[in-house]
Amino acid sequence: MIRTDTRAEGIDLGAGEVVAAGGERLGYDSLVVATGGKPLRPPVTGLDADGVHGVHRLADGADIRAAIAAGAKRAVVLGGGYIGLEMAEVLQIRGLEVTVVLADPLPMGQLDDDMGERVCAAMCAMGIDVQPNQPVREIELGPDGAVRAVRTDEAAYDADLVVLGLGMGPETTLAREAGLALGTTGAIDVAHTQRSRSHPEVFAAGDCAQTFHRITGEAIHVALGTHANKQGRVAGSVIGGRAARFAGVLGTAMTKVGDLEVARTGLCTTQAEEAGYDYRTELIESSTRAGYFPGAAPIHVKILTERGSGLLIGAQIVGGPGSGKRIDVFATAIWAGMTAETLAGSDLSYAPPFSPTYDPVVVAARVASRIEQG
Amino acid sequence: MIRTDTRAEGIDLGAGEVVAAGGERLGYDSLVVATGGKPLRPPVTGLDADGVHGVHRLADGADIRAAIAAGAKRAVVLGGGYIGLEMAEVLQIRGLEVTVVLADPLPMGQLDDDMGERVCAAMCAMGIDVQPNQPVREIELGPDGAVRAVRTDEAAYDADLVVLGLGMGPETTLAREAGLALGTTGAIDVAHTQRSRSHPEVFAAGDCAQTFHRITGEAIHVALGTHANKQGRVAGSVIGGRAARFAGVLGTAMTKVGDLEVARTGLCTTQAEEAGYDYRTELIESSTRAGYFPGAAPIHVKILTERGSGLLIGAQIVGGPGSGKRIDVFATAIWAGMTAETLAGSDLSYAPPFSPTYDPVVVAARVASRIEQG
Repeated sequence: MIRTDTRAEGIDLGAGEVVAAGGERLGYDSLVVATGGKPLRPPVTGLDADGVHGVHRLADGADIRAAIAAGAKRAVVLGGGYIGLEMAEVLQIRGLEVTVVLADPLPMGQLDDDMGERVCAAMCAMGIDVQPNQPVREIELGPDGAVRAVRTDEAAYDADLVVLGLGMGPETTLAREAGLALGTTGAIDVAHTQRSRSHPEVFAAGDCAQTFHRITGEAIHVALGTHANKQGRVAGSVIGGRAARFAGVLGTAMTKVGDLEVARTGLCTTQAEEAGYDYRTELIESSTRAGYFPGAAPIHVKILTERGSGLLIGAQIVGGPGSGKRIDVFATAIWAGMTAETLAGSDLSYAPPFSPTYDPVVVAARVASRIEQG
Repeated sequence: MIRTDTRAEGIDLGAGEVVAAGGERLGYDSLVVATGGKPLRPPVTGLDADGVHGVHRLADGADIRAAIAAGAKRAVVLGGGYIGLEMAEVLQIRGLEVTVVLADPLPMGQLDDDMGERVCAAMCAMGIDVQPNQPVREIELGPDGAVRAVRTDEAAYDADLVVLGLGMGPETTLAREAGLALGTTGAIDVAHTQRSRSHPEVFAAGDCAQTFHRITGEAIHVALGTHANKQGRVAGSVIGGRAARFAGVLGTAMTKVGDLEVARTGLCTTQAEEAGYDYRTELIESSTRAGYFPGAAPIHVKILTERGSGLLIGAQIVGGPGSGKRIDVFATAIWAGMTAETLAGSDLSYAPPFSPTYDPVVVAARVASRIEQG
């Protein structure tokens, strides 16, 4: 039975009932909490003003299009994750002047600096103004109540359109008020079966649920549709009586800035250090296609391996068309627990329109394994 | 010491000497035979006539360009492997009328029929005339001694340019005459160290050497630069005193026909049957990008898994731009011994310009693992 005529206003964990609008109570044997995520917002006022938009709901996209159609000329994008980057690119293509204001030193915080710098350079080359190290302090409104500028400690950036691309947190209001245990990330604490740790008859899946890193085992929160979908399937399977476990996340992510493709998986150096790994990094430059083939473009591949074991623990790619999806080979290799040496010996495809004789993935793995051999 | 002033005319295995032109004898402790491959040729006369070209040496490419510049109008390509397909496409683009004559029912013999048919349809859609099931019987020459037509049992195909794309065999003349043992494939029989099985002080690497299939362990001959390079490194490492083993091949291959990308790895159904596998196949259709994203194109992914274990043993991909390199994920997963279920749970990248939420690789793996679960 699908009920679209009401909404949950509370969960009575003791009684095993959901309290719907108007006080109706719906009993359950198993409950799935799938309340999703909520956009993170900076601690400033003015976020509800005309001209300030999140990028969460379908309606946000329609609102931004309408703002452009109504003549918006200067956009400020807050945040340099993939949503921020994609919005900046699109607004630039639509003819607006675009400034990206970052709290961090570089966009794409889950890249190492030497890779993030390439992304930043590509943004600048497109004509996007990147302003790093500047947490937003104030949304300035004009006399009409609409946004006029974004102020940081360093400057005020004129804007008639502000886009919030600051990431997503878990939406846990219902769960928290009901007394479901939240994890260290603030998301609902679940086992690998997606069962809530505090109430086994309650499951949580998707952006509202905490998950764990495949490599380190640490609790993390990653708001992404791929994980959400898999977690929902795990919860459904378990409720239906079939054994299932969510297998963790590597933090694989991909985006593009113009023709520059950007992707990462596993641990970056900051994460490897925090997790206490003794690791090596290798950064290679290769070509997306055979060097003589029209359209060949540079590709940079950086990989992290555990010192001694040679196990792959992370990879980052920045390069021309055809670069980014190569991250999936690393994601698969890390998932399987492969060493750089094993990956270097593997039989990847070669055809001049798509790859040099040695795919850049293999080149990076080979360099890392050569060094491991001493 | 590099000697470019002479060539090997024989190997005296008993004395441990290479016999050079003019009778000079060069002693060795270790010898590497890297005599490469030779193009396979059909058993007909006329192959040395003007207008008939292999695609082996750099000079072949120059000769074909010269023939086009001199006014060649009608080309017949013999063979439907990736070299044949690539030559047919290029000649078509250069404005020639192109007929591809196949001994087999379909191009790309290492694809299953249902995938090969898609390749064949793409060739026809480009205006290439494909003539299957017709071994060549005769190269007809004109009164000037140049090629005039290619004759099969069914018809004669006019041609002023004939391109041989029939694959490569091992060049083993020196090895055979010296008494080095050849394997069942006709290539030099070597161990995983690239040592000749008959003479351990002699190594062979590259297109002249036999190799083995990673999955079945069976002896095969695959003429491809990626393997050749790796085998040379193994031989060099072993001679230099470091343990090294060539790890086998999956038969990964990739090409394109116009915008259609074609790739395969591991076992196709014919190979799986020959190897005695109890296997399942799954064929899925998905999209190269998020369905709503401009440029999204269909992609077909077919995978073979071992019944019971669920181990991945083969994959084939035919689809639009961005499809082919996805084969590397399967090649890596098969290399690592992953099941379809494990791959289905993995964390592959998602971004609308590059992938639907579930990458087509994961969709195929999921379907296969669902069926395995019963």
